[in-house]
Amino acid sequence: MTLEINKHPHRRYNILTGEWILVSPHRTKRPWRGRQEDVVEGQKVSYDPNCYLCPGNVRANGEKNPSYDTVFSFTNDFSALQVDGPGNLFEEGLLKAKGEKGVCKVVCFSPDHSLTLPLMEIDAIEKVVAIWQDEYKVLGQMDDISNVQIFENKGSLMGCSNPHPHGQIWAQSSIPQEVEKKSTQQLAHWKEHGRSLLKDYLEQEMDLNERIVCENNDFIALVPYWAVWPYEVLIAPKKHHPEITSLSLKERRSFAEIIKKVTTKYDNLFSTSFPYSSGIHQKPTDGKEYPEWHFHMSFYPPLLRSATVKKFMVGYEMFADPQRDITAEQAAETLRQLSDVHYRNK
Amino acid sequence: MTLEINKHPHRRYNILTGEWILVSPHRTKRPWRGRQEDVVEGQKVSYDPNCYLCPGNVRANGEKNPSYDTVFSFTNDFSALQVDGPGNLFEEGLLKAKGEKGVCKVVCFSPDHSLTLPLMEIDAIEKVVAIWQDEYKVLGQMDDISNVQIFENKGSLMGCSNPHPHGQIWAQSSIPQEVEKKSTQQLAHWKEHGRSLLKDYLEQEMDLNERIVCENNDFIALVPYWAVWPYEVLIAPKKHHPEITSLSLKERRSFAEIIKKVTTKYDNLFSTSFPYSSGIHQKPTDGKEYPEWHFHMSFYPPLLRSATVKKFMVGYEMFADPQRDITAEQAAETLRQLSDVHYRNK
Ligand SMILES: O=P(O)(O)O[C@H]1O[C@H](CO)[C@@H](O)[C@H](O)[C@H]1O
Ligand SMILES: O=P(O)(O)O[C@H]1O[C@H](CO)[C@@H](O)[C@H](O)[C@H]1O
Repeated sequence: MTLEINKHPHRRYNILTGEWILVSPHRTKRPWRGRQEDVVEGQKVSYDPNCYLCPGNVRANGEKNPSYDTVFSFTNDFSALQVDGPGNLFEEGLLKAKGEKGVCKVVCFSPDHSLTLPLMEIDAIEKVVAIWQDEYKVLGQMDDISNVQIFENKGSLMGCSNPHPHGQIWAQSSIPQEVEKKSTQQLAHWKEHGRSLLKDYLEQEMDLNERIVCENNDFIALVPYWAVWPYEVLIAPKKHHPEITSLSLKERRSFAEIIKKVTTKYDNLFSTSFPYSSGIHQKPTDGKEYPEWHFHMSFYPPLLRSATVKKFMVGYEMFADPQRDITAEQAAETLRQLSDVHYRNK
Repeated sequence: MTLEINKHPHRRYNILTGEWILVSPHRTKRPWRGRQEDVVEGQKVSYDPNCYLCPGNVRANGEKNPSYDTVFSFTNDFSALQVDGPGNLFEEGLLKAKGEKGVCKVVCFSPDHSLTLPLMEIDAIEKVVAIWQDEYKVLGQMDDISNVQIFENKGSLMGCSNPHPHGQIWAQSSIPQEVEKKSTQQLAHWKEHGRSLLKDYLEQEMDLNERIVCENNDFIALVPYWAVWPYEVLIAPKKHHPEITSLSLKERRSFAEIIKKVTTKYDNLFSTSFPYSSGIHQKPTDGKEYPEWHFHMSFYPPLLRSATVKKFMVGYEMFADPQRDITAEQAAETLRQLSDVHYRNK
C-alpha cells in the first residue's frame, strides 16, 4: 500500500524544528461531546476607562499611559524577566539551573480599545511592524540579550487578559529552545546547500500550490506541511531576510498587508474574533552571524470545528507527539476560499 | 549576585528530556483579570443510560459494552491510528512524511460512572494498574509496535469528552519524540555511570527532601525540579523498573496506593475534581534492550490559582520556552500539607 496523505495516518516532518507530528486524516468525522467554549463578543467601546492599556489611563504600578495616537510600548509591570539579577549557573548533583536576565515589554497596537489587527487599517498595522523593528533593534543591542521574542496572545482562550489590541516582547540572555531548534535546522541546510532552507521550501510550495493561503509581491502565507494547530499559518518574506529590520519600506507594507489578510480570513472562518498566539522567529541577537536565518511569523490558533470547539493538545500530545485531524491541505483550501473582507464590514 | 532559586528569574534543566524551562518566582503576585473557567460539578450518577462507556450500553459503532464489573478496555471507535495501512516513507524535496500504524484503546477504570481515581478503592485502582500491565505487554508484542503510550485526560478542561472514569492507550510503530528524548538522556547517564538516571535523581531528592509530596515503601511522588505545570507531579518506583510489567505484586499495590494519594491531594487543593493529563513513560517495545529506562508516571494539571484560573501555555511558551511562576518547591510544600482524605469523604 502506498501512503495517501489525505487518507492514511502518518507522521510529517517539520524541516524547521526537526520534529514530527501525527496526522490522522480519517478521523475528522469523530463526533464532539466535550467542552464547548463561550463566545463572548459584545460591542467593544473605543475607550474603556478601566483598561490599563487605553491612552491616558493609570496602570497597576501607578504610572500613567501617554495619550498615544498610534502605537505605544512600555515595560511590563509584571515582567517574567528582570534586567538586574544573577546570570550564573547553579549545579548540585542532578539539579541544574541558570540565572536568566531579560526585559518584558507590552506593545499596544492602537489607542482604540475596540480594534484588533484585522480591523485596523494597513497604515496602522505598518506602524505595529515598525515598532516591532525598533524594539528588536534596541533590545537586541542591549548587553546580555541573545534573543528578542515578539508575540501576541489574542483572545481570552489564549490567556489574554485584556481585549485592548496588544502584543508582547520578551527579550532574554539565553536563546530559547524553539529558536535554537530552528537555528540548527537552518544552519545544516545552509552549510549543505549554501541556500536558505525556508526560501527553498517557499519555492517548492509555490510550485506545488497546495498549501498557499494568499500572497503578495513580497510575502507568502501558507499552512506549512507540518502544521500542528488546525489552522496554523506561516507568513514569510519571499526574499531572504534574517530579521525584520532588514525589510525595505515596500516589503514592510507588504508584511502589514498580508497580516491583515490572514487575520481577516481567520475572523471570517467562524465569524468570530479568532483567537491565536502568533510569534516572529528571527535571528538571535547574541552578536554572532546567522546568515542561515530566514525570519517568519507563525499563527497558532486553537479553534478546530467552530467558534466554540477547539483542538485540545493534551494526553497523547503532551506525552508523545503533537497530533492533528484535518490535514494542512484541507485547512489551506478552506482559508484560501475565505473572503479578504472582514465579516463585520460587509 | 548569586542565584536564589526562590527569588530570581532563572531557567531550570530537565535531566529527563534535556530541555529548559523559565521560572519567574517573583511573579506570583500578578493580578489575574483574564479568563475564568466554569466549575460544573453536579452530582454524578453511578449509571448514565446515555454514556457510551457505562456497562451494557451501546457505543457509536453499534457495539454493546459487556456488563463489566471492574475494568474494561476496547479499541477506540475513532482511533487516530490504524493497524492496517502503509508504513512507507514519502519524500519529495523538502516534504517528508511516513505512514504510521497503530492501535488506540480506551480503558474504563470502573463500571461506576460517578467515580474518578481518587474516589476509587485501592483494590480497584490496582485493577487499573493490572490492565495497564496487560495492555502494555500484549500491544507491545504486536508486530510493528515500538511504543505503548498509556495516558488519561481528566476533566473537560483537558479535552475529555466523557466524565466516565477512563484513560487511553495509543500504541504505534514509531517511538514518539517525548519518549525518544528521555531514552537519549537516560542512556547517556547509564553509559557514563552504569546507573539509572532517575534512581540517582530520586536518591538526591530523598536526601534533600524539598520537593517530595509523599512516598511509601516502593514509590515516591515529587514535584520535579524542572516541573513545567504549576502542580506537576512525577511518581516513580524506588527500585529500577524499565516497565510497569516487572513490578512485584507488592509494588503494584504500592503504585495504586500512591496514585490514590496524589490524586486525592489534587482534588483537595481547590476542592474540585482536579483536571489533568497523566501518562506513563516506559521502555519502548521495539524489541531492543533499554536497561537505562526507569518507568514513571507524570501528572500535568493546568490549574494555577484556583478551580477557575489555569496557567496558559501560550505565546512565549509556544515560541520560546515553557514558563512558570510558582516554584517547584512551593508547589511541593502546598501538596505535601494537603490531607490524604478526600474532601468529599470528610
Ligand atoms: O480521544 P479523545 O478523548 O476524543 O480526544 C482527546 O484526547 C486526544 C489524545 O490526547 C486528543 O488528541 C484530543 O484533542 C482530545 O480531545
Ligand atoms: O503576560 P500575560 O498576558 O499576563 O500572560 C499570558 O502570556 C504569558 C506569555 O505567553 C503566559 O506566560 C501567561 O500564562 C499568559 O496568561
